[in-house]
Amino acid sequence: MNWKESVFHNPSGIYLAGEPRGLGSTVRLRLRCAQQAPITGVYLRCAPDGEQEMHTGRALDPIAGWDCCWWEVALPLRNQRLHYRFYLSSHEGGYWLTASGLTRFVPTDHTDFVILADQHISHWLDHSVFYQIFPDRFCDGDSASNVASGSYKLSGQPVVARRWGDLPNVHQGGREFYGGDLQGIRQKLPYLQQLLGVNGLYLNPINTAPSSHKYDVASYTEVDPHLGGDQAFFELKRAMEERQMRLILDIVPNHCGEEHPWFRQAQNDPQAETAEFFSFEEHPHKYECWLGISSLPKLNYSSSKLRDWMYAGENSIMRSWLRPPWNIDGWRIDVANMLARGGAVQMGHKILRGMRRAVKTEKSDAYLLGENFFDASSYLQGDQLDATMNYRGFMMPLYHWLTGQDYNAVFERQWADRYPLSGRDLETQWRYWRAHVPWAITRQQFNLLDSHDTPRLINLVGGDRAKAAVARLILFTYPGVPCIYYGDEQYLEGGRDPDNRRTMNWDESSWDHPLLLEWSQLIGLRKQSDALARGSLQSLYCEENTLAYLRETREQRCLVVARRGPDPCRAIPTWPAAVPDGTVFREFFTQNQAATQNGHLPILESATQIWLSD
Amino acid sequence: MNWKESVFHNPSGIYLAGEPRGLGSTVRLRLRCAQQAPITGVYLRCAPDGEQEMHTGRALDPIAGWDCCWWEVALPLRNQRLHYRFYLSSHEGGYWLTASGLTRFVPTDHTDFVILADQHISHWLDHSVFYQIFPDRFCDGDSASNVASGSYKLSGQPVVARRWGDLPNVHQGGREFYGGDLQGIRQKLPYLQQLLGVNGLYLNPINTAPSSHKYDVASYTEVDPHLGGDQAFFELKRAMEERQMRLILDIVPNHCGEEHPWFRQAQNDPQAETAEFFSFEEHPHKYECWLGISSLPKLNYSSSKLRDWMYAGENSIMRSWLRPPWNIDGWRIDVANMLARGGAVQMGHKILRGMRRAVKTEKSDAYLLGENFFDASSYLQGDQLDATMNYRGFMMPLYHWLTGQDYNAVFERQWADRYPLSGRDLETQWRYWRAHVPWAITRQQFNLLDSHDTPRLINLVGGDRAKAAVARLILFTYPGVPCIYYGDEQYLEGGRDPDNRRTMNWDESSWDHPLLLEWSQLIGLRKQSDALARGSLQSLYCEENTLAYLRETREQRCLVVARRGPDPCRAIPTWPAAVPDGTVFREFFTQNQAATQNGHLPILESATQIWLSD
Repeated sequence: MNWKESVFHNPSGIYLAGEPRGLGSTVRLRLRCAQQAPITGVYLRCAPDGEQEMHTGRALDPIAGWDCCWWEVALPLRNQRLHYRFYLSSHEGGYWLTASGLTRFVPTDHTDFVILADQHISHWLDHSVFYQIFPDRFCDGDSASNVASGSYKLSGQPVVARRWGDLPNVHQGGREFYGGDLQGIRQKLPYLQQLLGVNGLYLNPINTAPSSHKYDVASYTEVDPHLGGDQAFFELKRAMEERQMRLILDIVPNHCGEEHPWFRQAQNDPQAETAEFFSFEEHPHKYECWLGISSLPKLNYSSSKLRDWMYAGENSIMRSWLRPPWNIDGWRIDVANMLARGGAVQMGHKILRGMRRAVKTEKSDAYLLGENFFDASSYLQGDQLDATMNYRGFMMPLYHWLTGQDYNAVFERQWADRYPLSGRDLETQWRYWRAHVPWAITRQQFNLLDSHDTPRLINLVGGDRAKAAVARLILFTYPGVPCIYYGDEQYLEGGRDPDNRRTMNWDESSWDHPLLLEWSQLIGLRKQSDALARGSLQSLYCEENTLAYLRETREQRCLVVARRGPDPCRAIPTWPAAVPDGTVFREFFTQNQAATQNGHLPILESATQIWLSD
Repeated sequence: MNWKESVFHNPSGIYLAGEPRGLGSTVRLRLRCAQQAPITGVYLRCAPDGEQEMHTGRALDPIAGWDCCWWEVALPLRNQRLHYRFYLSSHEGGYWLTASGLTRFVPTDHTDFVILADQHISHWLDHSVFYQIFPDRFCDGDSASNVASGSYKLSGQPVVARRWGDLPNVHQGGREFYGGDLQGIRQKLPYLQQLLGVNGLYLNPINTAPSSHKYDVASYTEVDPHLGGDQAFFELKRAMEERQMRLILDIVPNHCGEEHPWFRQAQNDPQAETAEFFSFEEHPHKYECWLGISSLPKLNYSSSKLRDWMYAGENSIMRSWLRPPWNIDGWRIDVANMLARGGAVQMGHKILRGMRRAVKTEKSDAYLLGENFFDASSYLQGDQLDATMNYRGFMMPLYHWLTGQDYNAVFERQWADRYPLSGRDLETQWRYWRAHVPWAITRQQFNLLDSHDTPRLINLVGGDRAKAAVARLILFTYPGVPCIYYGDEQYLEGGRDPDNRRTMNWDESSWDHPLLLEWSQLIGLRKQSDALARGSLQSLYCEENTLAYLRETREQRCLVVARRGPDPCRAIPTWPAAVPDGTVFREFFTQNQAATQNGHLPILESATQIWLSD
C-alpha cells in the first residue's frame, strides 16, 4: 500500500465544508489521507493578489465512517475565481496536491483546484438527464405542416419529402424532410418521461430555416412553420412545464443562413444597417462564411449592434427566449469554439463573457452550453460557458479505451489510431482534462456518447452490446450531466451524418423492452443518487481492461466498475478512499452484497457493476 | 533503446526553418526521431480559428550531421500566438508531442508549442550576460554625496552612515547607507567588462527615495542625489554606451513611497488631482498599501491619469527613460506579480499589456522584465512581459535538487522541504514550467542564482564550492539570459536581507583570482556560443546525481553534464539527439576530447563538464 494513493481532495461536499457564498465568504477545505501516511503538516497554498499565501491546516478528530486522517484549512474567498493547491510535509519530503495529482516538485498554477466564489450552480442540473432530439426525425405529430417535395429549393436543388423509416440519403443531406415536428415531441412526452425517465430535452434548432437541420437560420425569432410554428412550440413548452421537464434550445450565433433578412439586406445594400454584421471582402458576393460554405455567412461581432441584437440588449434574441411565453432553460451554442474568431480577430472570449452576462441577467439558473470538440477549458473558468458538449474530455477517450479506436477512425482519417488506450492512460487523460476546469463546471459538463454530429453509440462500439452497456454505465456515473441522443435507448443505428439522423422507431412491437428497461433503470439511479449528482470522483483502479472509480458524498458511496473485456481483477482497493473494512455494498444490477475486507471490495466478473453503500 | 526518447522538436533554429515574420508568413517546422522509430506519419495539429486543423508532414531526405529521420510540416501563421502540437502515427499507436513531452492520449492545449508571429526577440539579449548591482553597496565613487548619519529620518528613525566593509545591521535595514553610487559603478566598468566580461547591468532603483533600497520612490523622474544625481547617471550611461554595454533599470509601479508628492498631495487634499492614484478607505490615514506597509501606498490603476503618467502617455515615465539622454535598454518591474491586483480588482494583465505597448512603441527592442517569484506564465504569452526573474522556473528547483533543500528552508518555514529532488523530478519540473511559456520567451527569461531578495549563492549551497560551480555551470548553459548578482563572482557571502546586500570587496590583494577567471571563462563562452544563446534544449540524462542536456544549433552542439555528487554514470546517451557515432566533442574545462560510440558519449568524473562539438 502506497500511502500517496490515499491523498485526496475534491472541491465538493465532504471536502468543502461551507458552500461558497460569494466574495468574502470563507470555506473550509478538507484533505483526506490514510492513517499510516507519514504526513507532518498540511498547508493550503493560494495567491489571491499574486503573492503566495500558505494557510496552515489542522488535523481533525476522526470522522465516523472513514478510516483515515482528515486535515482542514479555512480559506477566505478573496477572488471570484480562487485557485489553490495543498502542500504536505512528510518524512519522505514535501508533496504538492493539485487536481492533476501529487508531485514532489512545485507544479504550475494551471492544474490548481479552483473555487468560483459565486458559483451559480444551476441546482436543477444536479438531477437532470437530458435527451437530445433532432426534430425532423423524432415524431411526425401533424403531417399537415410537412415539407412537400419540390415545394422550394435549397442551394439550387429541390427539397425532398421522405417516408418515415427510410434511410437518409447522403446526397440529399439537409434538403430531405421526414416530417418530424414539435407536436410529435409533445405527443411523446409520456414515453420520454414515464417510460424512459428523462427530465430535460435538448432540441436541435427549431428556428425557421430552409434545411432540415436548420443551422442555416432564416429567423432567430420565429419557430419554423414546418415544425409547427410558434403555437406548437408554445404547447410543447407548456406541456413540459406541467411535467417539470426542462428545455434547452440550439442557437447558431456564429453564422446565419444566406436567406436571413440581415444578410439579404446587407447583400442588396452596402449601406444597410445590417451590412456591418458581415465581413465582405468584395461586396456582394465575396464574404466570410463558416468553413467556406457560402450559404452560411459568418456573423461579425465587432458590430456592437449585432452584439446588442444577438445577446446584449434588453430585448436581444438570447434574452427574449428565456422569458415568457417561451421561458426556455438555457442555450446550446453552436460552434462556440469558432464564435467571433478568425485569424487575427480573436473576440471569442469577450463575446462569450457578454453572452453569459446577458443570459444570467435574464435568468440566473439558465444553462449555457457550448459546442466544442476540443480543449474548451479557456471558456470554462466560470465567466463564460457553464459547460460544453464534452466530446474531447469525456466521450472520445472513453471510446479510445473501450473500442481500441480513437474518434478519427470513424472518419477513416489517415491519422486515426486503432490501438486501444490503456486504462491508465484513460484515467490520466480524463484527470488532466478535468484538472483544467473548476470542479463546479465539471459537475455541469454535458456528457454524451454521440450526437447529430457523430456516428451513433451502437455503431461506435461496432455493434457490441456489452461495450455499449459499459459506455452507458460510464455516461450515467461520470461527473456531469448525461444526455442521450434520441433512439440510442433502442440502439438505433447510424453512421456518419446524415445516417446518424435516422427516424425514430415508434413500432412498439419491434422494441427491445428489456433494453429500454435497462436505460430507464440507469436514468432512475442517476436522478436519485446524490453521489452521482454531486459526489467527488476518485479513481480506485485502472489497469488494462478494468476501470473502477468512486463517487462519494457524506451520505452515499457509489463504486463503479467498468470492463472492456475479461480481466482477472476480483477486488478493488477501497483503502485509498478510507472505506472502513466491513462496509457493506449492494450491487445495483444484481443486488449482490459484498463487504470490504483488507482494504478491498470483492467484485463480480461482469462488465458493468455499480456498488452502492448508504 | 526506446525510440520515444528520440522524438524531439523545439521551436528554434534546426526545427524552425524560416523565422516567423509576422501574420501571414509561413514557417516550416521539423521533428526529429530515431531511424528505428516505427513512425508511419507525422501531422501538425493547430486550431487557429478554434477548429482543429491537421497538416500533413513529409519525411525529409537525410540531413548530413544527424543520424535520424526528419519530418517537416509547413505552417502558415494565422494567429499572433499560434499553438500547435504534433501527432505521430506508429505501429504502436498514435502519440502526441507537446512541449511537455509525448503522450498516447490527447493532451490539453496548455502545453502546446507556441510560436509568436511577431516575436520581437531582442537579439541583443541572445549574447547578453547581466550583472545586478545594488548601487549603495557596490562602489563609493564620490564620497561628497554620501548620506550623513542623522541627516534625516526614515519612518521616524535617523538614517545611519556605515563604513564600507562592515556588515549590514538587520535592525537598520533600509536606513543605513554605505555610500555606493553611480560614479562608483562607472569607475568599475573596466572590472565588469574587461576582467569579468559582462555586457549588461541591471541596477536596483536609482530614483530619488529616502531609503537605501529606494523602493520607496519619492520621484520617478530624478536620479537620487546621493547616488550622484542625473549628472552621474548621464556619465555612467555614456560610458556604458561607449563600451556597448546595456542597462536596465528597476521601476516600482506597484506603489510609491509616502514621501512621493503624488501621495502627499492626495493626503493633504482629497480633491487633489493625484487623489485617484490611491485607494483611501478613510482619508487621509487609511489607504491600501503594499503588504500592509503604510509607508508604501499602493497605486490604483483604475485611474486613467495614472496610467497615462506611468506608461501610456507620450511623455510617460516609462517611455521617457527609454529616450535620450537616458536611453536605457529596458525595465525591471518590481512586484509585477501584484501590480494592479487586489481581491476582486484584477487588472494586472491589462496594465502589463498597456506597459508593453508603451515600451515597445518607444523602443521595439527594449527588455521588459518583471519580478515574479511564482508561476508567471499568464504574463509570458508574448503580449505582456518579455521575461521574469526566473526564480520559480529555474533557480529554486535547481537548488532543491542540488542542495536537498527547497527555497523555503532558507526562511526556516515549517513547510520547508529538506529532501532532495531527484534528477528526474528536476528535469520534469523544468520541462513543465517551460512548456507553459512560448520558447521565444524562454530564451529571454532572466535566469539568476540569487538577488537582493534572496540569500547569496554561496550561502544557498552551504559554502560548498563544488555545488556553487554546478549552479554556475547551469546558469550559463540553461536557456535564458544569465545574470550575476554583484559579488557572487567572489563568492561574497550573505544570508537573508539585508545581509545579502553587503558591500563589494575592492581589495584586489584579497581576491580569489582563479575563481574570477572561472567566472570570466564561462561568461566568455556564454557570449560566444550560438548553441547556448539560441540552441534548442534536449534532456539526455537525469538520474539521482547526474543531469545532462544538449543545447544545439545547426553549427554547434553543447552537451552539459552537471553532478551534485559522485555517480557511476560514465556515458551519456547521444543517440536520442541523433548524434552520429564518431562525433568528436571537446570538453571546455579540461580540453579533453572524446568521440561518441554506440550512441553514447564517454564522460569524465567531474561535477561540471561542457562538451562542445563544432
